[in-house]
Amino acid sequence: MPKNRLEAFSDGVLAIIITIMVLEMKVPHAVEFAALKPVLPVFLSYVLSFIYLGIYWNNHHHLLHTVKTVSGGILWANLHLLFWLSLFPFTTGWMGENNFAPPPTALYGFVLLMAAIAYYILQCAIIAKHGRDSLLAEAIGRDWKGKLSPVLCLAAIPLSFASPLIANGVFVFVALMWLIPDRRIERALEKHEH
Amino acid sequence: MPKNRLEAFSDGVLAIIITIMVLEMKVPHAVEFAALKPVLPVFLSYVLSFIYLGIYWNNHHHLLHTVKTVSGGILWANLHLLFWLSLFPFTTGWMGENNFAPPPTALYGFVLLMAAIAYYILQCAIIAKHGRDSLLAEAIGRDWKGKLSPVLCLAAIPLSFASPLIANGVFVFVALMWLIPDRRIERALEKHEH
Amino acid sequence: MPKNRLEAFSDGVLAIIITIMVLEMKVPHAVEFAALKPVLPVFLSYVLSFIYLGIYWNNHHHLLHTVKTVSGGILWANLHLLFWLSLFPFTTGWMGENNFAPPPTALYGFVLLMAAIAYYILQCAIIAKHGRDSLLAEAIGRDWKGKLSPVLCLAAIPLSFASPLIANGVFVFVALMWLIPDRRIERALEKHEH
Amino acid sequence: MPKNRLEAFSDGVLAIIITIMVLEMKVPHAVEFAALKPVLPVFLSYVLSFIYLGIYWNNHHHLLHTVKTVSGGILWANLHLLFWLSLFPFTTGWMGENNFAPPPTALYGFVLLMAAIAYYILQCAIIAKHGRDSLLAEAIGRDWKGKLSPVLCLAAIPLSFASPLIANGVFVFVALMWLIPDRRIERALEKHEH
Repeated sequence: MPKNRLEAFSDGVLAIIITIMVLEMKVPHAVEFAALKPVLPVFLSYVLSFIYLGIYWNNHHHLLHTVKTVSGGILWANLHLLFWLSLFPFTTGWMGENNFAPPPTALYGFVLLMAAIAYYILQCAIIAKHGRDSLLAEAIGRDWKGKLSPVLCLAAIPLSFASPLIANGVFVFVALMWLIPDRRIERALEKHEH
Repeated sequence: MPKNRLEAFSDGVLAIIITIMVLEMKVPHAVEFAALKPVLPVFLSYVLSFIYLGIYWNNHHHLLHTVKTVSGGILWANLHLLFWLSLFPFTTGWMGENNFAPPPTALYGFVLLMAAIAYYILQCAIIAKHGRDSLLAEAIGRDWKGKLSPVLCLAAIPLSFASPLIANGVFVFVALMWLIPDRRIERALEKHEH
Repeated sequence: MPKNRLEAFSDGVLAIIITIMVLEMKVPHAVEFAALKPVLPVFLSYVLSFIYLGIYWNNHHHLLHTVKTVSGGILWANLHLLFWLSLFPFTTGWMGENNFAPPPTALYGFVLLMAAIAYYILQCAIIAKHGRDSLLAEAIGRDWKGKLSPVLCLAAIPLSFASPLIANGVFVFVALMWLIPDRRIERALEKHEH
Repeated sequence: MPKNRLEAFSDGVLAIIITIMVLEMKVPHAVEFAALKPVLPVFLSYVLSFIYLGIYWNNHHHLLHTVKTVSGGILWANLHLLFWLSLFPFTTGWMGENNFAPPPTALYGFVLLMAAIAYYILQCAIIAKHGRDSLLAEAIGRDWKGKLSPVLCLAAIPLSFASPLIANGVFVFVALMWLIPDRRIERALEKHEH
């Protein structure tokens, strides 16, 4: 069972999610720059979600690169990840339209958490198929980022009610942590080639 | 006539349908968690349709895997299937917004039924092109799932008026039935390779 | 310059156009079947446009199959075709929401006409690149369908004001004419292979 | 790290942006041709943005053609470009709905400018990966178009407040400048093959 259709479908869904989010930025009717002011928080939440989806696409790209054969389990673990990512436009829009208020921020963090868990399940499904000694298992090894992210997202949920600003700071921190490119898989691949 | 564009186009349409459905979940204006309550049935109907589209994508993936050459008949049978699947966002939204009331549930079942029939026609078109002795014909053989699904969807339509809850239970049951991975084609493929 | 990205991009745009049209069918707020009545003309116009886009995808699929190298002229002729096709959701929605009234029907015919002309230009750009003796030039040869379609669409525009019913009948006739699979290119290909 | 998923994802995002813009052309409720009059400026801004996105797709197509290996830097430079392009539907809709008034025209120019800068950064990231002597570095060489475009877009921003007509004239001029096909990369490629 080749993996190219899995990649093509995931690319399609991610491309649409990332682009559909922009529809939450409703075009204002007034013509002055002041009319853009209420759009600003929606724009900021859009930027945050765009970066997160970019990170997921980037990591998904690396992850699938190590996959040789696709099983039913991998197909469904992948769809499960896409499901939580597909909720990003909703949570992004709710958080942006309500100026980063506590409940939407908490929901945003919850969906981030579920996506992180879904990504972890997908990793496990791939390792289960390819074996504990596989390239991926080795590369993931001491995956402190993949373990820290859900913990931080989980912590950000109650934090949202104390201070949505700090909770959003956590989201930004997690994103920056990932933006530093993940050389682990690349390195393991290179080591393997030599 | 290669099949890769047929796969790419179908992947694209399925990816868009699955993602566009989320737009039916309108972002609430209020900021409390209570504002999410009217969104809940829309969310549940979204989950149901997401799973159905995932099943169709999954099965379509397996089905096309057995195809070697694409005829005009297969192209149009495929478009016919995509047509019924493209109505999912509409019926999902109507059912969700009206809290699983009888008429939207019946319409939801009708579109599910038509999609199941369209999938059956696509199978027939592929078998007609590849011959009764082909890998697919063999794999489909005693396709009890493919035969039971439309019967159950058909039964759910009148049931919607008696009890929309039971009708939706039938939809969930059919989905669960398919979620158990379809090993028939995989097995036939493996047998073929040995 | 390989043609696969041209195909992928065209497939993407066509898949999105065909799926976005369904958003013009607004989910009714009422729960009775009667609430679907105003949606019916939008549904019918959706079916018509879905078939037309299916035909264009199908023919585009055959047309690009004969292409070996892609020039800047072909890229832009292709984008020009996609531009007119991208207006289908708008004209379909306007015609459907206004119950096939004369002005929307005339505009629908105008966009169909422009798409037919754009397709013709794309054919010419491909023939210009591949030479008059090419496979395509031979296959197109006596392309009565490609010549009759724009003439019929042009005739349907004034007809819309006399009788929108007859004008829409012309649109249906043109669609049926194309649904009969185009064996010309397939035959030329087969002849070439022997 | 192969480049095909980068191309597929970019094609998907560009295809969706180009098609989603058409949703800003709201279907009028009235049935007369006069009802199309307020849609006309939205249509004109749609045509302008369609051409710009076509140019970006076309140039991206040529640019990626020269890429052999994809680094993390190229992935993120590409996402950064897609981010600014994803704002086109918003700025196009705002400019079109307000009949090319000064503030929306200035914002439109600003997003055009940022996209041009993002494209330049992507070029630099590719050259950094492939070396100053690479095919691309040679082809870009005296890239007067790539240098003139952002300067003209920057100039158009203050011009928008003096005369939105002239500012839009500049946007049209820049587009026409690019529509003349970019033979530089093609020539360098041909030279390389001989």
